[in-house]
This record gives sequence, C-alpha cells and structure tokens, in this order.
Amino acid sequence: MRTVRVRNVHETGTLARLLAAVSNMGASVGSIEMLTETAQSVVRDITVYADDAEHMDHVIETMRTNEGTRVLEVRDEVLQLHQKGKIAIRSRFPIDSIATLRRVYTPGVAEVCLKIADDPELALLYTSISHMVAIVTDGSAVLGLGDIGPLASMPVMEGKAMLMETLVGLSGIPILLNTKDVDQIIQAISSIAPTFSAIQLEDISAPRCFEVEERLQAMLDIPVMHDDQHGTAVVCTAALRVIARRAGVDIGKVVIGQIGLGAAGNAIAKMLMGLTGNPVLGADLNEGAMGRFERDGGKRSSLQEIMSECEIVVATTGVPGLIKPEMVRKGQVILALSNPEAEIDPDVALAHGAIFAADGKSVNNVMGFPGIFRGAVDSRAPRITHEMLIAAVDVLVRMTPSGELMPHPLDKKVHREVARAVAETAIRQGIARAEYIPYVEE
Amino acid sequence: MRTVRVRNVHETGTLARLLAAVSNMGASVGSIEMLTETAQSVVRDITVYADDAEHMDHVIETMRTNEGTRVLEVRDEVLQLHQKGKIAIRSRFPIDSIATLRRVYTPGVAEVCLKIADDPELALLYTSISHMVAIVTDGSAVLGLGDIGPLASMPVMEGKAMLMETLVGLSGIPILLNTKDVDQIIQAISSIAPTFSAIQLEDISAPRCFEVEERLQAMLDIPVMHDDQHGTAVVCTAALRVIARRAGVDIGKVVIGQIGLGAAGNAIAKMLMGLTGNPVLGADLNEGAMGRFERDGGKRSSLQEIMSECEIVVATTGVPGLIKPEMVRKGQVILALSNPEAEIDPDVALAHGAIFAADGKSVNNVMGFPGIFRGAVDSRAPRITHEMLIAAVDVLVRMTPSGELMPHPLDKKVHREVARAVAETAIRQGIARAEYIPYVEE
Repeated sequence: MRTVRVRNVHETGTLARLLAAVSNMGASVGSIEMLTETAQSVVRDITVYADDAEHMDHVIETMRTNEGTRVLEVRDEVLQLHQKGKIAIRSRFPIDSIATLRRVYTPGVAEVCLKIADDPELALLYTSISHMVAIVTDGSAVLGLGDIGPLASMPVMEGKAMLMETLVGLSGIPILLNTKDVDQIIQAISSIAPTFSAIQLEDISAPRCFEVEERLQAMLDIPVMHDDQHGTAVVCTAALRVIARRAGVDIGKVVIGQIGLGAAGNAIAKMLMGLTGNPVLGADLNEGAMGRFERDGGKRSSLQEIMSECEIVVATTGVPGLIKPEMVRKGQVILALSNPEAEIDPDVALAHGAIFAADGKSVNNVMGFPGIFRGAVDSRAPRITHEMLIAAVDVLVRMTPSGELMPHPLDKKVHREVARAVAETAIRQGIARAEYIPYVEE
Repeated sequence: MRTVRVRNVHETGTLARLLAAVSNMGASVGSIEMLTETAQSVVRDITVYADDAEHMDHVIETMRTNEGTRVLEVRDEVLQLHQKGKIAIRSRFPIDSIATLRRVYTPGVAEVCLKIADDPELALLYTSISHMVAIVTDGSAVLGLGDIGPLASMPVMEGKAMLMETLVGLSGIPILLNTKDVDQIIQAISSIAPTFSAIQLEDISAPRCFEVEERLQAMLDIPVMHDDQHGTAVVCTAALRVIARRAGVDIGKVVIGQIGLGAAGNAIAKMLMGLTGNPVLGADLNEGAMGRFERDGGKRSSLQEIMSECEIVVATTGVPGLIKPEMVRKGQVILALSNPEAEIDPDVALAHGAIFAADGKSVNNVMGFPGIFRGAVDSRAPRITHEMLIAAVDVLVRMTPSGELMPHPLDKKVHREVARAVAETAIRQGIARAEYIPYVEE
C-alpha cells in the first residue's frame, strides 16, 4: 500500500487512463484525494494497493510512464502511521495540581486500596481492571504470515487494541510472549490474569491454541477467547447466514463442507454444527486435526467429495488456488477465506457456476471480537458460551444492510448491539455476575 | 481525605475558627476553594486530611458544631476520581475511515509486520514497545499498607502509570501477579518481557524483591528496576545532599546510620556507601537483612548506637515512634521515612536538638522513577547502573529550589533533566544502544 502523489495535465481522460493502467497491472486503487487544481493540471494523492513490494515497484513505474502524468512523490503512509506505535496508556484526567496528585497518588490512594483489600469486588468499580483486556500472542500464526514471532506481531495486536478502544471503549493491552511452550504460556497468562477483565488469545498456532484456551479457561473465572477460532466463526457464520437468506437457502437443510480444520476451520465447523444440528463434512491433510474434528461430531471427507457434494463450502487452508475452477458445483456458495490469497478467486468461482463467492477481505474479524468482549465484560460472565457467540451472529445478520455481506465495520451501533446481545444472553443463561446496564456513558 | 462543602456566615474570623478547630483535632486542610459569596455567607469546598475514617468522622462532627458554619455536603472526591480507574489504552490517532482502517489493520499492517520480522530492531520504531513500561507487583508490600494483594494495589500502579504519562510520556502498563513465588514471578515477567522497553518492579516485599530483581535483570536485556529500592534511594540521597548542603555538612565525612534494612533501607545504605566510599552503620531486627547488609559492605550496629553516633540517620522500619525523643543527638539530621506514621515526628526531633528532620511525606518517589525510566528507555540501556542513578540524584540536588527539600513534583523540566542525565550517563558508560536525542516531541 502506497500513497502516490501525481500531477495530471488537465485533459479529459488522463486520470481514467492512469487508473486503467494500474488495474491492468493487477493492482487496485483506494481513496483519491484532490489537492490542487490549476488551469493546466490537477495534483492528487492516490492510494495504491499491490500484491508485494516488487509488484508495487512495477505499478509505480507504470504510473510514471502514463501520458500526461507526473509522479511527484511516493509515500509510505502505512509506515508513517505506525511510527512509535498506534496506542498509548493515557491518564483519564490530568494531574494538574498538588491537590490532584494527593488524591490520585499518596496519600489519597491508600483509602481506595484499603477499600478494595476489604472487598475485592470493588476493584471493578475503582480501578481500570474493569475495562482492561489482555491481547495475548506468541506470534506463531499472525495473519496469513505464519510464525513471524512476537515482536513482528505487535502491529497487529496494536490494531486490535485500537479497534477495541474505538468501537467499544475497552482498553486492549498487547501482551507478547517469548515462549511457545503450552505450559509456560498458560503459566504466564494465569499469573498476570488479575490485571484484566478478559483474555483475548490471538494468532497462536494450532493445535497448541486449543489446549491453551481450554486449560486457561478452566483455571480463570474471566472470559478467555481465542479470536482466530471463535471470532472468526462468528463472522463467518453471520456471513453464511446473510448469503443463505439472500439466496433463499435454509442452512439447516443443506450439506456444509469445511476445507481446512485449523483453528478457524475447526471453530467454524463446530459453530455450524451447533447451529444446524447436522454434521459438517471436513477435510484436512493433518490427521490430528481430522481426529479432533470427528470427536467433535464432524464427518470425515475429502476436498473432492466436499466440492462435489456440498451446497455450502468454507475453505481456510492457507493454500492459494487449492480449489480448481472445474471443481465448483453449480449453485454452490463458496467462502474461500485464506489471506492474502484465497483458495479460489471469487470471480472465477462465480464464473464457474457458484451462486455466491467471497474471500477473506470481505469476512473480517473486526465485526466480532470488540462487541463480544464488551458484552462478556459488561455482564461479568466467567466465560463466553456458544449461545453468547450465536447472539453476536444474530445481531450481525440482522444489521447487515440489504445487498451487503456484513455491516459497516466502523458502525459503532452494530458493535454496541453485539455487546448488548452477548451480555443479555449471559444474563439469561444465569452466568452473568452483573446486572447489565445498557450503554449510558459514551 | 474528604472534600467538605461549608457555608460560613459572613463574619470576620469564622473560617479561621473553623480551621483552628480542624487543626486542634490533629487533622489538616489542603485546598480551599471559594464557590459563592453573598452579603450573608460564603460557600467553600475545603479538603480535609485525617488519620483514618473514625478520625475523619470526628473532624467533620467538629466542623458541624463550629459557630457560624453549616456543613452542606461531604464528598469523597478521591473515590470519585478513582471510579473505573485512572488510566486507559487510547489510540494515538482516530480510526475514522475505511482508508485508515486498511492502513492500521489488515491489509496494511502486514507490511509493517514483515519489516519487523526481517529486522526486529524496527519494532522500536514501528510499535508502542518503545514507550511501554511494565509496572509489576504482587501486592505484597503496598505503600505502608503491607500485603494487601494485587487487586488492592491496582490504584497505586495506576497512579504510577498516570505519573509516567504525565511527567515523561511513557506508557506504564500495570501488571498484577497472583503469585508470590519467586520462580513463578520471574517466569511470568520474562515470558511477557518482549512487550516492554523496561520493567518497573513495585511493592514486592523483601527479601524476595532482591532475588526477583537480580535474576530477572540477568535474564533480560531491558532495564529491570525495583522502585522501592533504587527509586527510593535516589530520592532519599538527593534529599540528604540538599540538607547537607544547606547545613554545611560534607556527607563524605560524617557517620551515616540506616535503621531498617528492608528493600528501601538496604538500597539507600548501598547508594550512600557507593557515593561516599565509607561504610554505613545499619540496624535491623532481621538477621538475614543484617547478613546481606554486611556482605554489601555495611557495618553491623544497633538502634541505640546509630542514634548516639551518627550525624545523619535514615529510618525505614515501618515502626511508628521507634525513635524516642531523648535518643536524638544535638545537630543530627534525621529522615524518618516510614508511612503513614514516621519513626519520630519531625517537629519532635527538631525540638530535641536535630538540625534537620523530615518524614516520608516530603521525600516522595515521584521525583525519581519517571525520569530514570525515560532516560534508560531513551538510551536503550540494557540495565540501570549505579552511575545512572547518581546522575539522577545530581539533577534533583541541582534543581531543588533554595529553601526546599526537593523540586516541585509536577515540574516536567526536572523530570526531563533527570531523563537526559540518566541517558547521557548510559552513553558515557558505553552501555547505551541508541544515540540519545534530546526531547524534540512534547
């Protein structure tokens, strides 16, 4: 992604020609901002997306040679934005006098400490614990990039923290682990757990992620959720239900196949089985994953069988181009979710008979985790249940505008509705430890 | 601490009489704000400090019976301030468009991740790690309150985080541990260390704190500092030097005694020995503490001996009234630092011949840790040396206004000067891993 500043001569068709050249290269264009216009020329900032650095170089070279265009500057605004990080701890009010210092620090603070020592419940009222969520990773399965280590995963964790704050007002605290050992991870997180109201596990590779989540949740009485499993399952299930509604398909009555049974695939299949009561066909090259899937009630299958028998196919394999065009069955719904390159290009799938196809760009986790965690924290549920996740799915389906696959990711109303539905479900299930107060403070 | 709203009749001497009544009760008054004034009366908010809740009740009762005064309202502004905590994670810029979302989150973030995966050093440039400091406690030795547990210590940790942000722009992240086991503490902190540029240990009881700090620092290549030891030592040493300068005493030539050899006392004595090259006389009821002190070069002594032989006496025992008035030697300097009640009241010490006396209220850690950590982080020193701490002492001594014991705690210039001096010392010692850039961004 680069921001390219160009000066075009003021001649009809110059910008169109430039954009055509970019798209002919297989790259795409985001926002275009007009900066200045004179009688002779127009200066614009154009955001360009390319596959990789080499591709980007070629695209910019092509832009340079467009007739009537002069490239003035190529800026890496992404890197600029990330400088010194995207989040910080901030005081909620200024310490601007000795009087305030004495209230927030010594001697005033001692009174608050003693109150909490007498009644630990008060920690939720008088400290930031009530809005702090650990975003924990060992950097072993980051985005589509794999095991790039904890330091390199920090920009993603910060992105999650920004979204939490922006969308639902929680304080996401990135916690980077320098161990991949399951016992050590569990030990470290459980040792620091009093700091937080919930634990969001992120980008921890399968199969370790299953054990980490399960054992930690058994030890702690605050929600522990691996977002790559359950957040992804919520968003993917919501998208499938939106598609099914539009296509007039009853997902309770069709055969669903899941290709790839890693963290995300396994959770998606389980959620769909919980929702429909029917087994899902599953395929994975890893025998351990297949065994786990069968124990969870899934039906052992293969890529070929799923493609030929299923009305709905979800792929989360990380293998670009795994689904050949000729495998697509007429009327099939295909979500090929691997990033950055999908198992089959949605356009190709549609051209070969799919009734609906989408890739990972349009099915984004940001729709799930902020509201789910806010709802769980607000209700003080000790864990996040299947029913709470399904409540989130319901809201996303209901609030998706006609013709769209998902609500707008920055629409705070949606995230608040998700939070409310999740919290209300916890209360209904009798696991909430707080009466839920709808959002009064914003 | 309470804020009492009073309406006084408009008669000369009413406020004075009210304040006299409060001080006669042994309580003190902070700020007084005038709210409204009419021909008949004046309404004011008066901040009142008392020893404990019962004392406060008596004081307020006394205020109610003051002639011409009507108490309108008693507010607990401390608790109000602490509601929902004093800190939060905030985005450093808004996510206000899909274009920004794509830059800070997927797909833009992948580019930044890959850059860091290629060159881990870039994590300091492109993430928040560069300004994140863990403020870690197990809640075992909080203020003068003792082992009140991690939850009840959170208001203090948040206070430290607020001060870090306010005074030097670092992001202090409280980390509460639910273990007091040395191995588990070390394991947990070292597991999460990649998240941070430094580790500030807080309120961990002796003798565990010594081992935790030492072993952690040996494992990690970022600074690990137990504030109750070295932060306290810096501030106390600076105060002693200011006093000595004023009294015309050469601290290199007088006998210094340290009563109480816990975390703070041990560190203060060690710093004074490093500074003067002379042994300090030490006393503690705990034989383990005495042995450690002797191994560090201290001289075994007793309370009586120290009080009768030393020109300078520092007490950090936690025992109110330990120093009897008749023990005070003429011309002695006494810092009785235990909170909330000192080993001897400074006024009593002065009345019995001390040339100078102060308690813990005037020797406050806030002068030390913010600048020390900022300097260490800026220079990317792997540890904080004795010389770096002494550099901080020098700045505090130099910048203390004439007639004061310490600089003003909210004077940012002082904290920046401390940071600069600490960083420059690290560079001079050859342990810095960054060239130090004086504050350009504020």
